[in-house]
Amino acid sequence: MQATGKRRSSCPAACALDIAGDRWTLLIVRDLLRGRTTYGALAASDEGIPTNILAGRLRRMQETGLIVARPYQERPLRHEYALTDKGRGLADVLTALARWGKRYVRGTRIPPEFRAPRRGRGA
Amino acid sequence: MQATGKRRSSCPAACALDIAGDRWTLLIVRDLLRGRTTYGALAASDEGIPTNILAGRLRRMQETGLIVARPYQERPLRHEYALTDKGRGLADVLTALARWGKRYVRGTRIPPEFRAPRRGRGA
Repeated sequence: MQATGKRRSSCPAACALDIAGDRWTLLIVRDLLRGRTTYGALAASDEGIPTNILAGRLRRMQETGLIVARPYQERPLRHEYALTDKGRGLADVLTALARWGKRYVRGTRIPPEFRAPRRGRGA
Repeated sequence: MQATGKRRSSCPAACALDIAGDRWTLLIVRDLLRGRTTYGALAASDEGIPTNILAGRLRRMQETGLIVARPYQERPLRHEYALTDKGRGLADVLTALARWGKRYVRGTRIPPEFRAPRRGRGA
């Protein structure tokens, strides 16, 4: 992954990929969107993110302004993470990826937290 | 990047990232969408993709069904690359990334081939 601040071109898609174009960052955004805000909750993702990668991504996501960390406990110090507007803006990218995955990769299922509620007939 | 065929979970976004979640694959899709179909044209991207990475990505994109290669010259053998429906489907992901990049990364510009034509006033 590119170091923070470097960019490959002025193409907005390339710049977005410099920030979020890896196999994990957008999954961390997904889990924050579904309300998993602590390190422990994020480490328990279905995909089994290695803890060294999670720690590195959380640090980088703060550097690139996608998330902020807030202490919620002092001894031992623990943080919870929250998406900024910039980070929350990646929800549209996630939605496009999920639509594509649902259409082209067999056997995928939208996680329950992201499913639209069913509407009763005649309601 | 994950080996072809393995998946981390049944989440469609995670599966999409297994296939296209890296810094280059979607830029190759972008360049194919703008009509750059030969190895030479793809190697000349603004972002300066290293040729060993380009060759590896083109091979992997064939394995995952995003592109097909067609010979257009025999001696020496040369291929041109075309997006499949599955590969072309990633255009929506690229659009979402580009919108996000344009909004949140200062100084980015949509490449001219992707700009909507200007409409004259009163036309």
